[in-house]
Amino acid sequence: MKKVLIKKIGDHIGEEVLIRGWVRNVRSSGKLQFIILRDGTAEIQAVAFKPELSEEVFAKAKSLTMESSVRIQGIPKEHPRRKGVYELAVTDIDIVQIADEYPIAKKEHGTDFLLSNRHLWIRSSKQWALMKVRHTVYYAVCEYLNDNGFFRFDSPILTPNPCEGTTTLFEVPYFDEGTAYLSQSGQLYLENGIMSLGRVYDFGPVFRAEKSKSRKHLTEFWMMDAEAAFVEHEENMQIQQELIRFVIRKVMASNGAELQILARDVETLKKADAPFAVKTHKQAVDYLKEKGVDIGYDDDFGAEEESLLTQESEVPLFIEKWPTDIKAFYMKRCPEDDNYVLGSDLLAPQGYGELIGGSQREDDYETLKQRMIDEKMSLDDYGWYLDLRKYGSVPHSGFGIGLERLIGWISGVRHIRETIPFPRMIYRIYP
Amino acid sequence: MKKVLIKKIGDHIGEEVLIRGWVRNVRSSGKLQFIILRDGTAEIQAVAFKPELSEEVFAKAKSLTMESSVRIQGIPKEHPRRKGVYELAVTDIDIVQIADEYPIAKKEHGTDFLLSNRHLWIRSSKQWALMKVRHTVYYAVCEYLNDNGFFRFDSPILTPNPCEGTTTLFEVPYFDEGTAYLSQSGQLYLENGIMSLGRVYDFGPVFRAEKSKSRKHLTEFWMMDAEAAFVEHEENMQIQQELIRFVIRKVMASNGAELQILARDVETLKKADAPFAVKTHKQAVDYLKEKGVDIGYDDDFGAEEESLLTQESEVPLFIEKWPTDIKAFYMKRCPEDDNYVLGSDLLAPQGYGELIGGSQREDDYETLKQRMIDEKMSLDDYGWYLDLRKYGSVPHSGFGIGLERLIGWISGVRHIRETIPFPRMIYRIYP
Repeated sequence: MKKVLIKKIGDHIGEEVLIRGWVRNVRSSGKLQFIILRDGTAEIQAVAFKPELSEEVFAKAKSLTMESSVRIQGIPKEHPRRKGVYELAVTDIDIVQIADEYPIAKKEHGTDFLLSNRHLWIRSSKQWALMKVRHTVYYAVCEYLNDNGFFRFDSPILTPNPCEGTTTLFEVPYFDEGTAYLSQSGQLYLENGIMSLGRVYDFGPVFRAEKSKSRKHLTEFWMMDAEAAFVEHEENMQIQQELIRFVIRKVMASNGAELQILARDVETLKKADAPFAVKTHKQAVDYLKEKGVDIGYDDDFGAEEESLLTQESEVPLFIEKWPTDIKAFYMKRCPEDDNYVLGSDLLAPQGYGELIGGSQREDDYETLKQRMIDEKMSLDDYGWYLDLRKYGSVPHSGFGIGLERLIGWISGVRHIRETIPFPRMIYRIYP
Repeated sequence: MKKVLIKKIGDHIGEEVLIRGWVRNVRSSGKLQFIILRDGTAEIQAVAFKPELSEEVFAKAKSLTMESSVRIQGIPKEHPRRKGVYELAVTDIDIVQIADEYPIAKKEHGTDFLLSNRHLWIRSSKQWALMKVRHTVYYAVCEYLNDNGFFRFDSPILTPNPCEGTTTLFEVPYFDEGTAYLSQSGQLYLENGIMSLGRVYDFGPVFRAEKSKSRKHLTEFWMMDAEAAFVEHEENMQIQQELIRFVIRKVMASNGAELQILARDVETLKKADAPFAVKTHKQAVDYLKEKGVDIGYDDDFGAEEESLLTQESEVPLFIEKWPTDIKAFYMKRCPEDDNYVLGSDLLAPQGYGELIGGSQREDDYETLKQRMIDEKMSLDDYGWYLDLRKYGSVPHSGFGIGLERLIGWISGVRHIRETIPFPRMIYRIYP
């Protein structure tokens, strides 16, 4: 018997095939038993019609419970009125396992219950759809980078020094070497990689011991960091824009069914695939002041300011040229005014928050060293990083994308805990 | 001026172009100054010929040191006798930075020195070639899986329970939740993922607090774990074989130049792309006994045994059906004899060691539970994992590939510390 995936069922109309999967749900109606079947690729309604089946097979159909595992034989038919919708006329059933009463039923469950049962919750349509979108987004980012001369360069997780400040570090006792820290970003290592490979990126888990319980924070999340030699601030933003637009198009082309399950407004998403808006930090503060926000020219933006700045924008918004004092030590200062740095944050439309942080990097040895001394960083610990400015320093830029926030925006999901298989938060490490 | 990558230089013969990169080396010969230039994509010899240049430009050419960064203009020519080899006739030079005296010179350096200067060592031809092969291997594995119905399903790094025994765990204090452990393998999470997506994999860093200083051990390495519903032992090995052969072909097609730098014997590699050999554990022990090894039928194999088993094999060798007692609790027992499990290890030819470990998984709730009780595991901690055998359990199998060992074999590099950008070992966490 030919084994067929549900998403390919349309290629086998009228042919007897075997589907292997799980029962999403069952419904009885006299001589008919309806079985919603899923196999990981899609869902289909299988119909067991009593007059056409042996008593034994129909009894099996009646015995199925939610999430039971089965091998079902049948003949696919197209729905008489709905093109592309198929049904399976059951001919035989092999029960693999009748599932115990399933803990996640139709009724509403609290978030804590769902998170504690994440291993089961992940089977629901919405979570399944989010995992499929995640797959597409991951490889769309990789594909864009690979096609544009970037090489994968996996930075280490166990590191001797912090990258993004010392307040959110996870510590790991490391043999006789003392304490290692879980990486917050691979950026410093990537700056090293470009000196060998020209353009590099990593794309793996990073860690922030965030005490925040906000819907935009996880303690473990996936980040893509890219870095390119001989790329300066403007070109850096150009690459980011092209990359994000490429990802939008990929998801729309690959995940139509999933976006529908997620009830994502696709028209809005499509509109974001247009040239992005740009404001300097100063212009953004001016705009916020006009809107009545009490904010200064040296202030960072919170979730509320980000929402205000983007709520009327159809496209993502770059905020560039930030005050030096509120940005990281490695950002290059603006040539026209060293109170500002050549950094940019990319904000998603409609208050979905920051998608990317990037900047041109300081490439002058003395300037960077002074900046590190000012920030009381250990020049010994970061000697290797300073070295890159001694041996063939080049202008270079890079940026980092938080995978879960990008999926959140593209999927229209407000809480990023649903965009990763097993979210880790301050009070959550199980299962 | 048209900016061109060195690997594309052949498309611009006779045209004046701009190359941006670093000086690999310089050599003088009277009126000629030879500059070996690299830009991350390839290398080219640039030739500054005094009579054709201004004094200032020729002086710049003379001033270049190893690893200086430059923008060089010139006209590419094909080598008169060597097809596909190009040279650049220099027309102008813009020095970005004259590098300090480079610490890694021609002379031999000790391993410790090179590892302490990994941020610079990574620029050498061999290390550059290894990183390019790594890129290809990573995406070849992904491409095979994506084309065969697998979805990416990133398993967590911070986990509440160990997966592969408790002796090699890194511990991380985790807020008020007690201790988290760095993941040793995502397998248990992937078994969960197949219940939603059918076939899944992860491909990220895993951690083993290995006290071993062997050339095959890192404390942080990259692993691809794959898992598939309705796949049993034989098909599991079939998938592994196809995947490895796909990777070999991809690297040979994409990295000819790099394999040459690595002095890899490509003919030997090509021969490995043929049906793999299979021995049961018992047959392997018989073979070793014939070779005079003192080994029992319940023993595991060490590096020496693996070498003996594979030194005469042109293709990788599966060792299947291992004694139950020396394999993990989750492996399914052989239906014909429960002293053996349906597990397989794939060994590379010529003593390069284990490439893959895989097995069919125990899918029966009571059997698995008893196995866990026997191993004194906490049923509470692994309740979520047992759950998968209650709600629609299915026969399923999976396997894990250590990325660095696979690269090691394919590249012909014996010590896997060179196959990852920043290796972590018991005495090594810097830079």
